[in-house]
Amino acid sequence: MGKDLSQFIRNEAFLDKVVSAEEAASWIEDGMNLGMSGFTLFGEPKEFPIALSKRGEQEDFKINLYTGASLGPTADQSMAEAGIVNLRVPYQGNAVMRGKINKGEIYYIDQHLSHTAEEVRKETLGKINYAIIEAAAITEDGYIIPTGSVGNSPIFVEKAENVIIEINTTAPSAYEGLHDIYVQKEQGERREIPIYNASDRIGEIGIKVDAEKVKGIILSEQPDVPSPLFEPNEETQQIANHLLDFFASEVAAGSLPQSLAPLQSGVGSVANAVLNGMASSQFKDIEVFSEVLQDGVFDLIDAGIVKFAAGTAFSLSKKRVDSLAEDLEKYKDKIMFRPQEISNNPEVIRRLGVISFNTAIEVDIYGNVNSTHINGTKIMNGIGGSGDFARNARITIFVTSSLAKDGAISTIVPFVSHIDHTEHDVDVIVTEQGYADLRGLPPVKRAEKLIEIAHPKYRPQLRAYFEEAKEKVGGQTPHILEKAFSFHTNLKEKGTMLMEEEVTN
Amino acid sequence: MGKDLSQFIRNEAFLDKVVSAEEAASWIEDGMNLGMSGFTLFGEPKEFPIALSKRGEQEDFKINLYTGASLGPTADQSMAEAGIVNLRVPYQGNAVMRGKINKGEIYYIDQHLSHTAEEVRKETLGKINYAIIEAAAITEDGYIIPTGSVGNSPIFVEKAENVIIEINTTAPSAYEGLHDIYVQKEQGERREIPIYNASDRIGEIGIKVDAEKVKGIILSEQPDVPSPLFEPNEETQQIANHLLDFFASEVAAGSLPQSLAPLQSGVGSVANAVLNGMASSQFKDIEVFSEVLQDGVFDLIDAGIVKFAAGTAFSLSKKRVDSLAEDLEKYKDKIMFRPQEISNNPEVIRRLGVISFNTAIEVDIYGNVNSTHINGTKIMNGIGGSGDFARNARITIFVTSSLAKDGAISTIVPFVSHIDHTEHDVDVIVTEQGYADLRGLPPVKRAEKLIEIAHPKYRPQLRAYFEEAKEKVGGQTPHILEKAFSFHTNLKEKGTMLMEEEVTN
Repeated sequence: MGKDLSQFIRNEAFLDKVVSAEEAASWIEDGMNLGMSGFTLFGEPKEFPIALSKRGEQEDFKINLYTGASLGPTADQSMAEAGIVNLRVPYQGNAVMRGKINKGEIYYIDQHLSHTAEEVRKETLGKINYAIIEAAAITEDGYIIPTGSVGNSPIFVEKAENVIIEINTTAPSAYEGLHDIYVQKEQGERREIPIYNASDRIGEIGIKVDAEKVKGIILSEQPDVPSPLFEPNEETQQIANHLLDFFASEVAAGSLPQSLAPLQSGVGSVANAVLNGMASSQFKDIEVFSEVLQDGVFDLIDAGIVKFAAGTAFSLSKKRVDSLAEDLEKYKDKIMFRPQEISNNPEVIRRLGVISFNTAIEVDIYGNVNSTHINGTKIMNGIGGSGDFARNARITIFVTSSLAKDGAISTIVPFVSHIDHTEHDVDVIVTEQGYADLRGLPPVKRAEKLIEIAHPKYRPQLRAYFEEAKEKVGGQTPHILEKAFSFHTNLKEKGTMLMEEEVTN
Repeated sequence: MGKDLSQFIRNEAFLDKVVSAEEAASWIEDGMNLGMSGFTLFGEPKEFPIALSKRGEQEDFKINLYTGASLGPTADQSMAEAGIVNLRVPYQGNAVMRGKINKGEIYYIDQHLSHTAEEVRKETLGKINYAIIEAAAITEDGYIIPTGSVGNSPIFVEKAENVIIEINTTAPSAYEGLHDIYVQKEQGERREIPIYNASDRIGEIGIKVDAEKVKGIILSEQPDVPSPLFEPNEETQQIANHLLDFFASEVAAGSLPQSLAPLQSGVGSVANAVLNGMASSQFKDIEVFSEVLQDGVFDLIDAGIVKFAAGTAFSLSKKRVDSLAEDLEKYKDKIMFRPQEISNNPEVIRRLGVISFNTAIEVDIYGNVNSTHINGTKIMNGIGGSGDFARNARITIFVTSSLAKDGAISTIVPFVSHIDHTEHDVDVIVTEQGYADLRGLPPVKRAEKLIEIAHPKYRPQLRAYFEEAKEKVGGQTPHILEKAFSFHTNLKEKGTMLMEEEVTN
């Protein structure tokens, strides 16, 4: 490799463990449970999954794959293509893997991201046989320094029978000190999570590992795959503006200070547009207590709007990846990554009173949210941390464009085809048409507000459904079950959710 | 009243505040927000709501009513009958009130019971104008001693502009010492909830109140209304047996100790059958960390099975009400009531690793649960605390008979008509046919297990739906949306969910 290994492996007990990725991959047996580092394309092992996938092209075996969240082309995609994944837990976002899941070729458990560590503790799927963890270094004290995500790596390392470390020699050395690794004890034996501000450091800078358990160390020079850069367009800008208006009205009403409250934002174009919009806003000294930190967070720190940002992983575009080593030095007192069990923990989210905003696929007239399934059947990515935050936040916001598929789909429908977040957990919905503040409203009044932020061309048929349901059936939550999915079935039959009457009008 | 008032009102600053219920009721103005004590028929004020209802028969006004949970005939029913309730939050269980809610005459927000205190803090519906709290006594130090429930009383007293105390002179004096009153600060300013065992006492024995804020004290001699006694029948006994078998198998597998884990059980016939069944079980030294404590808990303490029980309210049958004064003395070191924000708090439930079991109205083949709505439209009671526990529990169990309405309804359906608990939060479903352990299973494997615990006469049509959905649509969660509610529409059209083919077979 041409590099001085002792710079990366600083504890002698680990030095003789270096093996090829192929050798490490050869240890994996059919039916094993693997726990891999990686979250939103950052911090995943690269050489190992490629070697395992290559082996899979020759041999017949399947593994169950746990991760933090979505892995990239070298991991989720190559393993899906090689046909070596039996079961995937708790989140994915890769097109190839998604396709195989939806064909029934890969089983998938779509799980709250804060729950996975508990399931590993309980051995719901048996023991983790191998943890495979990307690292920037192994310290003198035998700590694994993670790279661009923490995810579930600490619990994988603690519970796995064997550990494989993939040292990425291209990882910025400034990753060391970025992480705050805190692992809870078993339920019933643990204490509180002592976080009272997003910036409270409660753990250690790396993952303690028993050298005995480390079966091999792989060396890698493969960088993380940057995430797409989500530039705002007119529509996402409108959504962002409405959301910023909502925040401003809360501040004006005295319900929130100018520092708002610790902020969680989902990943994607709307989230990025909101972060962009904040750069020229009145808000200041904001704490971010989130899952994923995107490009915008760095900009907001520069602008003095964000004073601290905690999460469990980066999701950065190429531009930010290129300057990462420099940025990590610059922002090292303002950024922190914790295990996803902590970044997404109900205890902390509720204590801090986080404001949460995430993207919805569809929303029904009573405020139930589908975050995962297209037409109730095909999974997109997964619920991720949206439920961890939505249930426990001070204000729970979901954002979506009112239309999808060039207007063939209204994202506001009578009855969502899959429910990830129930009406009990949803406070505010934002589309490019405006925002619906549902707080303190019973279902029938929620519907009035939600129909108003549907796209104008769909409002008449939403109104017609709602009025007919109130008139003919009534009840706390008026529905006509035989028509509840009429938008969806119309889409299937006619290629659009727009009913014939409206089309011909 | 013939009783020595100073025995109940032991602080002089309060002694001159005694007024008639009629006078107190006269203070209430149209549009006010009232926060009343009371939870599952226990600990509600009685004289005040009756007086307010009487006033409502003469005058035109409406109030918004917050409580802990369901109130009884003197409160929810009399106020609903008088037509003085505009909005009801967060739970009800009275037939008259339910009827008016479903007719759209009363607005109702069906809320997670741990969330209501946060909504009061945030003033989502504005300030609480009056808190009306039933008390056993006011102490020398000016603490209100609650009666048979704590519910949301502490936050109502803290945040209300005015407080009315209804002293119930028939309440056992042994209520004093039963309660553990701990109120959290605002989000962002609070610390952890320092409960590490169900029995940890963290608060005070009463609710501190500023005498200045107490506008009046009413005297009452009306006892609580006992709850129906839920005697096990053959079916509830079968469900209970399956659940006990599940617990036994977890113990046998080493996943749980003989003390299980802190136990939460819903209210009703199955819960009571389970508690009865436990009395002759192998389990011992169980801690109960629940919302409502029913008759069975006393029996299990007697049998040495339960060593401590914490909740927020009693729900007791007449037999136990009659011996309550004596029982409170006898069990005072083994029972504790906390505010529902604490008894149901995600932080504590998850830390302790509570086992939760609650009743479902219907369950779909993928494990989504409807706890609240009949045919997706008419509300029954409300979600109550089931979501607080289900989301955060170590094992989340829902129980239901596989049939309802003399077999016209299958409680296992293709798609639930309303979702309160999503597949992400549901581990085990129990019917009289057996239990389905869904842990670690993807949706299509969950369906296989769930169809097996449906009633045999509905299994063929559930199987037919599932196979057709897999075949024709596929995906992570196969559904045929146009037939997803076919069971429900068949019921509406033909009076039974059983399809014609099966009937004629």
